[in-house]
Amino acid sequence: MSTHPLLDPSARSKVAQIVSGISRAITRHSLPAGSKLPSIRQLARDSGMSPFTVTEAYEQLVQSGLVTAKAASGFYVARRSQPSPRSAPALSQLPLDTDWLLTGIYDQDSHGVMAGCGWLPEHWYDQEAVMRVLRKTAREQAISLRYGQPKGLQALREHVCARLSDQGIASSVDNIITTQGATHALELVCSVLRVAGQPVLVDDPGYCNLISSLTYQGCQLHGVPWTAEGPDLAALEALMAAHRPRVFFTNPWQQNPTGASYSPRVAHGVLRLAQQYDVMIVEDNVSADLLETPAHTLAAMDGLNRVLYLSSYSKSLSPSLRVGYIAAPARWAESIMRVKMLHGLTTPALNEQLVLTLCNDSKWKRHNQRLKHRIQEATSDAVSRFEQLGWQVFSPAAKGMFIWARPPHDSTALLQQAQQAGIFLAPGKLFRPDEQETQWLRFNSAYLGQGSFWHCLQQQAQK
Amino acid sequence: MSTHPLLDPSARSKVAQIVSGISRAITRHSLPAGSKLPSIRQLARDSGMSPFTVTEAYEQLVQSGLVTAKAASGFYVARRSQPSPRSAPALSQLPLDTDWLLTGIYDQDSHGVMAGCGWLPEHWYDQEAVMRVLRKTAREQAISLRYGQPKGLQALREHVCARLSDQGIASSVDNIITTQGATHALELVCSVLRVAGQPVLVDDPGYCNLISSLTYQGCQLHGVPWTAEGPDLAALEALMAAHRPRVFFTNPWQQNPTGASYSPRVAHGVLRLAQQYDVMIVEDNVSADLLETPAHTLAAMDGLNRVLYLSSYSKSLSPSLRVGYIAAPARWAESIMRVKMLHGLTTPALNEQLVLTLCNDSKWKRHNQRLKHRIQEATSDAVSRFEQLGWQVFSPAAKGMFIWARPPHDSTALLQQAQQAGIFLAPGKLFRPDEQETQWLRFNSAYLGQGSFWHCLQQQAQK
Repeated sequence: MSTHPLLDPSARSKVAQIVSGISRAITRHSLPAGSKLPSIRQLARDSGMSPFTVTEAYEQLVQSGLVTAKAASGFYVARRSQPSPRSAPALSQLPLDTDWLLTGIYDQDSHGVMAGCGWLPEHWYDQEAVMRVLRKTAREQAISLRYGQPKGLQALREHVCARLSDQGIASSVDNIITTQGATHALELVCSVLRVAGQPVLVDDPGYCNLISSLTYQGCQLHGVPWTAEGPDLAALEALMAAHRPRVFFTNPWQQNPTGASYSPRVAHGVLRLAQQYDVMIVEDNVSADLLETPAHTLAAMDGLNRVLYLSSYSKSLSPSLRVGYIAAPARWAESIMRVKMLHGLTTPALNEQLVLTLCNDSKWKRHNQRLKHRIQEATSDAVSRFEQLGWQVFSPAAKGMFIWARPPHDSTALLQQAQQAGIFLAPGKLFRPDEQETQWLRFNSAYLGQGSFWHCLQQQAQK
Repeated sequence: MSTHPLLDPSARSKVAQIVSGISRAITRHSLPAGSKLPSIRQLARDSGMSPFTVTEAYEQLVQSGLVTAKAASGFYVARRSQPSPRSAPALSQLPLDTDWLLTGIYDQDSHGVMAGCGWLPEHWYDQEAVMRVLRKTAREQAISLRYGQPKGLQALREHVCARLSDQGIASSVDNIITTQGATHALELVCSVLRVAGQPVLVDDPGYCNLISSLTYQGCQLHGVPWTAEGPDLAALEALMAAHRPRVFFTNPWQQNPTGASYSPRVAHGVLRLAQQYDVMIVEDNVSADLLETPAHTLAAMDGLNRVLYLSSYSKSLSPSLRVGYIAAPARWAESIMRVKMLHGLTTPALNEQLVLTLCNDSKWKRHNQRLKHRIQEATSDAVSRFEQLGWQVFSPAAKGMFIWARPPHDSTALLQQAQQAGIFLAPGKLFRPDEQETQWLRFNSAYLGQGSFWHCLQQQAQK
């Protein structure tokens, strides 16, 4: 059976026979760019392997960048416009620090098993929809060649307003400023709130790039410890009283990295304390479009008064278009617009038009529904497997892509062994102010479907 | 003759008869969106007016946004995806300050005569080429849906390297970081060089948004006075000796706002002083693609040692795609990349791919040649007319879009009268540190082809 022309009989496992055989065929151009691979069912039949084996091999090929998955169509040899993965250093040579998480991982994407990665695999997004919308735009609309409006494309801001209104956030189009994704939104907010050098509160653990950015700005960072229902209110009050911070940056829904969300009690408590100590809240709801039901956001409860709300289309639609937005109280919206202009003038109307057309595309909406279920299933499966291996999961009922988990043994050896095996893990200290040591790690369930990952964890447990 | 259905016989001038008549026909949908207007020759024949009159009327309609000009095809009723111009306040109600120049003017574009504007009219860009390239990309290339590389699209950075090498700037792809235009590049450079609160030198007069941004960052700004061949070297040395600034931000080629360029003597002198006083130079060459012959840049003379060089495709190709770049010495390039990631992660690969394809498009290259000549002719015509009216032109031989000129009388009344007439002028103080008063004004020759502008200047001169 291993005489199938797409298999490499010299490889040790069945999955590796397929991966190696197809990689070789692509390298030797016997499978040219753009050509279709046999279907999973077909190759399973012809090779005598199980469809699960073929599926895992195809997933590995997709993650390596050699193969592209097209929804409802099949698997194709990738047309490479990206530089060859060979140009990036091997995972095992890289230091796994915050700096690497900020930059190195972006060159590294599609290498190995990205178990600690912050975004979804490319083939989980709706590539067909993006290309369809791009072709439609190219055919039907004249792209404006002048600068866009300072606050961003009017039509997209109207759409955002309508969506926010559905979620109980009353805003007008003047409250909305588009940005190049959530990280840009955070940067503008930092500048407007003049946090540089000031005491600020952040989630502990929290979004790694925000912590790096605030550190770079010379802020005095104080981490608010998280429980499974959000920030610990007693600790929050003590920190507010002791440090009189101007701002609390928080990511209340499907939080990065814990996956947990605020309970209603905590949401109310945080707003009450913010009022009492006169603290602004920056509510980062970057995963809004991936929530099963819209959250009862702080911005909604607060009536967009002391909350600056931000979100992005990077988690649900694709990070490559670079579109996000801020909803801000009127007194802040004008200042944010000015800083946006000072720091880079307008945002590109083409990208905002593409995002708007996608948001109104019924097929994309259905894809987004399927995407949520796919993530939920992946997370639920992974949580079970972690628990079977004796790991502690911080928020076992969470439904987003992030899993915060702690092994039953010291994690140092695991980190080293995984790196040797080409598995990228994200150690928990990268998500803490001052990189305080911790045994917890962040995982992304979308990358945990592969046997090699669980094999690595199992081996470590047996040592 | 005024019974032509597209003319409004009640309007006072011939130009106004056409503008008003066609505007009315568009508003009443007797000329639906997308329909073609009669050719200039045809309408001139049918109405008995001169082709010059029709040309001026069509230019006004294009600038109002009602009509679109397509190169080598004709004039069409615009398909409006932009919000109606009515949503922006009338020019006469707006304060003409730096804040307005930073934000208000972007809402205002396509109102009145934008004589003080910083960019070219939309219809001077090659809309056809942009749409052709967009369609080609949509047809032929799969857009990557994952994050791009931290330094930007590899293929564009390779193209930039090759272009810089042609101009004597030796760089490798690792020296290049793409940005969202030159203003974003300046912001990243400011952050990396840690200029906030520090003494810095800027051109006087200089780029208005840079001056606003540095002021916002709490810098101590010292203006280096310009002569017709660049900064005054004696003044520069005195400022460097007195204030020990870390950085000199300068725009040596077709400078905004004077239009003047460094002479070789001044270029050498500035670099010599920078070395002597250990000052970094930020060389903003935003108009690089509009120079008749490539400049002997400071970066080339310096060997990319103490010069951070930046440019953009906004002036030549279109500001709407938001693509620019920085070429930096190796020791700075990595830091700039990190700050780029901290402030907003990667730049959109789609936009960078479109720019790259356009740069390699032979028709676009020819368009860019014609564009340079068009700007040169417009500038040369305008300079003659200014001089006929007794105005002083700072750099009469300059060939870029910017003209820095001073009236033979006090400019205060002129500014008021122009604003009433719907003509936007940019008073010179907006381009100076601390908005120091001056009688000079900045003009953009691309907007000075209209009779109403010169009529306004003439009226003022006769008062």
